[in-house]
Parts: sequence; C-alpha cells; structure tokens
Amino acid sequence: MTFREIVELHPAPPSEIREVLLRCAEECLDCGASCTACADASLSESDVQELMRVIRVCLDCADVCDATARIATRQSSPDKRLVRAAVEACATACVACAEECDRHAAHHEHCRICAGVCRRCKAACDDVLAR
Amino acid sequence: MTFREIVELHPAPPSEIREVLLRCAEECLDCGASCTACADASLSESDVQELMRVIRVCLDCADVCDATARIATRQSSPDKRLVRAAVEACATACVACAEECDRHAAHHEHCRICAGVCRRCKAACDDVLAR
Amino acid sequence: MTFREIVELHPAPPSEIREVLLRCAEECLDCGASCTACADASLSESDVQELMRVIRVCLDCADVCDATARIATRQSSPDKRLVRAAVEACATACVACAEECDRHAAHHEHCRICAGVCRRCKAACDDVLAR
Amino acid sequence: MTFREIVELHPAPPSEIREVLLRCAEECLDCGASCTACADASLSESDVQELMRVIRVCLDCADVCDATARIATRQSSPDKRLVRAAVEACATACVACAEECDRHAAHHEHCRICAGVCRRCKAACDDVLAR
Repeated sequence: MTFREIVELHPAPPSEIREVLLRCAEECLDCGASCTACADASLSESDVQELMRVIRVCLDCADVCDATARIATRQSSPDKRLVRAAVEACATACVACAEECDRHAAHHEHCRICAGVCRRCKAACDDVLAR
Repeated sequence: MTFREIVELHPAPPSEIREVLLRCAEECLDCGASCTACADASLSESDVQELMRVIRVCLDCADVCDATARIATRQSSPDKRLVRAAVEACATACVACAEECDRHAAHHEHCRICAGVCRRCKAACDDVLAR
Repeated sequence: MTFREIVELHPAPPSEIREVLLRCAEECLDCGASCTACADASLSESDVQELMRVIRVCLDCADVCDATARIATRQSSPDKRLVRAAVEACATACVACAEECDRHAAHHEHCRICAGVCRRCKAACDDVLAR
Repeated sequence: MTFREIVELHPAPPSEIREVLLRCAEECLDCGASCTACADASLSESDVQELMRVIRVCLDCADVCDATARIATRQSSPDKRLVRAAVEACATACVACAEECDRHAAHHEHCRICAGVCRRCKAACDDVLAR
C-alpha cells in the first residue's frame, strides 16, 4: 500500500521501531477490513443465529484494529505508553477473534481465513511489543 | 443521550456490568469528541509548533475512545478479555492525554477542559475494570 | 456534552455556521451510538434472520455518523465542499436507516427509538445544508 | 490484501458491482491511511503553520475514506442510496484533499504522493458511481 511511502517521508528521524510499527499498521488495516467482511458474510449466512457471537467479536476487533492502524501509522512524538496500550489491546482482540472464528472454520471458509488474518495481525502486534 | 434507551432495551438479560459499561460508553463519546476538538483548536493556535505533541496524543486518544465507545455499547455475548483490553487501553490513553493537556492548561483553556474530560473518562474506565 | 465547550474556545473567529455544525455533531454522536446499539440489539433478537437488512443499514449509518461528527466538530479552515458532502451523505444515511427501522418499529422498540434519533440527526444535517 | 478473499466468499449471490465496490474499498483503505500519514508528517514539518489547512483536510478525508471503506466492503442487502451517498462524499473529499495537497507538493514530497493516492481513490469512487 502507498501509505507506507508517506510514512517513510516523515520529517522526524525514524524511531528504531518505525518499521515494526508500519508492519503492524498494514496488518491492522487488513485485519480490520477482514473482520468487517467476516461479520458481514456471517450476517448473511442461513445459520446466522449460531454466528451471533462471532459477529459481535468481529465488529469489536474491527474497531480496535482500525484505531490501532491509525496510531501505529503516526510517527510524530508518540506517547509510548499509549501506543503500547493500543497495540496490546489489538493483540488481545485478535486472539479473541481468531479463537471465535476457529469455532466456525470448518463450515464457513470466511471464518477460517479471518482467523488466519487475526493471527498474522497478532504476530505483528507482538513484534511491536517485543521492542 | 438517547442511545442509552436503546441499550436498555437489549433483548439479552442485562449483565451485571451493563450500567458501568454504559457510563463508560457515554464518557468515551464525550472524550473522543473533546480530543478531536482540542486537537483541532490547537492546530489553529499561533504557537502550534509547541502543541505538536498534544495534537498527536489527542488524535490517538480520540481514536481509542471512539473504538471503546462502540465496544462498551454492545451487549451481545461479549468476549470479556477483549472488552477489558479495550477499556484498559482507553484508560491508559486518557491518562497520557490528560498529562499532556495539563502541560498547556495554563495558556490554553481548551487543553485544561480536555484534561478534565480525559480524567472523567479514565475514572469511568476504571469502574469497568474494578468489576 | 463537554466537547461543545472546547469547540467554543477555538481560537479562530466563529464561522456563521458554528452553532448549527455543533448541533449536527451532537446529533451525529447520539445517532452513531444509537445505530451501533440498535444493530447490536437486533443481533440478539430471536428473529435475527428478518433483521439482517436493518443491522446492515445501522452499521453503515453508524460509520457515516461517526465520521460526520468528527468533521462537524472541527473548526480549523474547513473545505466547504467536503463538509457539505459529508453532511449530505449523513442526511441520506439517516433517512435510509430511519425507513428500515420503521419497518420493525411495531415489534422492536429499539428500532422505533433508533428511527426517531435518525430523523433528529437528519434534521440537524438539513440545518447545516440550509446555510 | 486478504480481506478481498473474505468478501468473495460472501454467501449472497454477488451483485453486479461487487468488484468495483471491492476496488473502491481497497483504495479507500490506502487513501485513509495515506491521509492519516500525511497529516502526521505535516504536523512535524518546520512550516507547520502554513500546513494547517492541509492537515485539517487530510484528517477529514481520512475519516470519510475509513467509513466508506467499511460500507463498500459490506455486501449484505445494501441500501443503494446510502452506499451511493457515502461514495459520492468520498469522491468529493478526495478531490478537496488532492487539491490542497497539490499546493504543497513542490516542497513536501509526502503531500505530492498523498495527492496521487486521493486521485486514485476518487477514480475508484467514480467507477462505483458510474454503475
């Protein structure tokens, strides 16, 4: 995605975690959109009543991912506690969403794929938290 | 705000924390809008160069608050870890934003008010986390 | 809500539409949260399969309202076309959501209330567009 | 991005505009993140006082793009007026943001790139509106 080029032109000297933050932002964008799409696909399934919980968790995870994508994109004088807290919440949301999607993965391929995206996003969050 | 009436009509039996979640959602909405407004007012100040950090933190805090408001509003089968993680991130964001706004409170009244809203939101988050 | 006090402290001379924008922002915040709550309540109803369309429209309307609330809150050198386009989209979303909620108002009180909030938000948008 | 695979697994028969909506959602995600990044880079520039207007417009455009990305991603029984109104607002926001970024393109490369992303997103919106 092109937004990476803009972040790389930020006038401040790059922090040592800019690259892991950028990876995190990219994964958050894909995960947020994937959770929005999985909630929407689940809403149209004939067994929607069994999918209530996964829809709820996908909606929550999309909100956390979209907020975290914005925060991880910004490079101007961050408050490190705030950034870390957001990325931690995102990692937790992605685990919760992946686990719930797993429960429906056998009968709904979109849940199987969504679980994978959530795990990839969780790993990108962990890379930020490891620094 | 009217959205409270809709939450109170949710068909599921109310969880024991519905009322504290609702208070949290109300404070998050006000805090998110306050941070958006404070970032915007700061952007138009003649000393904007000194306000860069508070603008950054307000933008981040607005994103976390708006996501948390949505999550705290939803009552359908929550994942408790996810809800808790979002509310924890929100409490941390509000503390960071209040502290940064405090530094400009003497010369910018909008920062002084924003700090107060952030502290009120932090308290509402703590009430959820205490349950 | 306190965010109004912050907007009123914005350093630029108030535009002649600041007050109608502020009313619009307040209604958008309540409408966005109401649509989030109505989608969530509908998701937990036993007739969720009949509520798919209203859930979809509520999710969309919440997204448009939340974006419009932020845009109407900002007072720093606006692009008038952009502000107007966002408020127009919000008015259209509110009408669509109110109409769909009306269809379920007789059996779901939360839909009846949500339709009313959407109409109030539509009126606040129209007040901006009339200027 | 992976979210496309999930949208393609939506259980409803694909609408004739699913592919243009998907392209629109992808461009909106990149444009929203690009505007967030451009506002943030501008905030750290030494001539931030001259960049106030472009920061404001980038923040607004990011909000409209992120909302439109979600709406264009959803495939469950859309309200066509609502979808169209959101995409129209997004096209208008992208034009406004591209024009403002153009004014700074000569001295800020991030503004030049952001203008290009906005124009690409505008074109993807127009493709939806042409259907």
